[in-house]
Amino acid sequence: MNIALQISYHGGRYHGYQIQPNLVTVEGTLKHAIDRTFLEDIKIFSGGRTDRGVHAQGQVVNFHIEDTTIDIGNLPKVINYHLPPDISVIGAKYVDEDFHARFSAQGKWYRYMIDHHKYPNALFSDRSFHFPYPLNLQAMEEAFSYVIGEHDFKSFMGRHAVVKDTIRRIDSIELKEQDNFIFIDFKAKSFLKNMVRILVGTAVEVGRGYKEPYYMKEVLEYGHRKVAGPTAPAEGLYLMEIYYEGKA
Amino acid sequence: MNIALQISYHGGRYHGYQIQPNLVTVEGTLKHAIDRTFLEDIKIFSGGRTDRGVHAQGQVVNFHIEDTTIDIGNLPKVINYHLPPDISVIGAKYVDEDFHARFSAQGKWYRYMIDHHKYPNALFSDRSFHFPYPLNLQAMEEAFSYVIGEHDFKSFMGRHAVVKDTIRRIDSIELKEQDNFIFIDFKAKSFLKNMVRILVGTAVEVGRGYKEPYYMKEVLEYGHRKVAGPTAPAEGLYLMEIYYEGKA
Repeated sequence: MNIALQISYHGGRYHGYQIQPNLVTVEGTLKHAIDRTFLEDIKIFSGGRTDRGVHAQGQVVNFHIEDTTIDIGNLPKVINYHLPPDISVIGAKYVDEDFHARFSAQGKWYRYMIDHHKYPNALFSDRSFHFPYPLNLQAMEEAFSYVIGEHDFKSFMGRHAVVKDTIRRIDSIELKEQDNFIFIDFKAKSFLKNMVRILVGTAVEVGRGYKEPYYMKEVLEYGHRKVAGPTAPAEGLYLMEIYYEGKA
Repeated sequence: MNIALQISYHGGRYHGYQIQPNLVTVEGTLKHAIDRTFLEDIKIFSGGRTDRGVHAQGQVVNFHIEDTTIDIGNLPKVINYHLPPDISVIGAKYVDEDFHARFSAQGKWYRYMIDHHKYPNALFSDRSFHFPYPLNLQAMEEAFSYVIGEHDFKSFMGRHAVVKDTIRRIDSIELKEQDNFIFIDFKAKSFLKNMVRILVGTAVEVGRGYKEPYYMKEVLEYGHRKVAGPTAPAEGLYLMEIYYEGKA
């Protein structure tokens, strides 16, 4: 049987998502809980590898097991019993044997959240990027318009990433402001390491008035990380959903 | 000079709001930061005393000082420097000498948040009441309609409260559901200890179908805590705003 889980987590306490020896990671904690549930050593496959400090509402993992007496409807509850409150399984279902949380993914939705109040709201300090200065949202939207579609996003990739093919296609970027919070939604088949955070950091330079919107296109064409803006803080980023054919 | 501050905090780490010897409270932490800012022992007055675990976006405190060289526009930043990230000053202003955060208050707005997803969303586990069972929201609204206006709310007061006058007037209760979260907004001049949480706990019994909406009126008329529903968990409650004449 192949089982897919949908996972939410707050990344604040973890050394990133991916399993690492001797470090507490989200994936490691999750694997531990799944192992405890089925009392065996289970290999899990994850849809996205979020950076340290990044949160998720819609991470997806899958794993194969021989058989189980646990009802799939109760599975989230049983696994959650072995998880701390900042990681929670929010859905479980049987999927085709060839489903793979990472390779079957058709697209991803990331959200970036800016606390745009003058002073940081304590309730969002661990889950948003506090930016107190004026931002020209229209200029930011124009800047984002230059990166929609298929481009080489080499300039927007974290320095230590080891990926040869840096071509990606962004399907949409939507920006909205509500009660002095700014939400920026990115949808693409896949993203490079730190890509969303560098796009946000660069757009903030535009919104702040330090650069013109067209700067985003120049950064894209230059093809080197050094010309882009700073990497926006991890705590403002959320993996919202991973899309699969016929929904997963 | 009389200075009023607006405060946001996450109540999770604190032994309630009010200053207590040898316990870490929100008010104590706040007083410490204000004392450090002005380098003197300052008496602070607080608009509301939230229970242990309750959060705030709009707590108000005031205090009197002789004089200061700190610009009022920078004051939140300076005080926040002495505060942990889960307490944040989000506004500061000079107020009339006779302004008192508690006694000048004209009304308060509390919000209660229920995570109504089947499984708890990890991002809200420390800031909402997870209730996975079906709720009839219309029945809950009808139940709430019986307590709007001026009544003796003795049945909805925490057992260990020492208050003689238990008459209160609720101005409005509004309920809305969004993305499987339920928000219930209560507005009144003032509330008894645990009143919002007992009202929510009782309404949930109605919404769940264990009681008819009219039960709320019966509880009100009975006049004893024992007939009301359970006290809903503190972590779902937020002090949103305190109202003052001409706004504070």
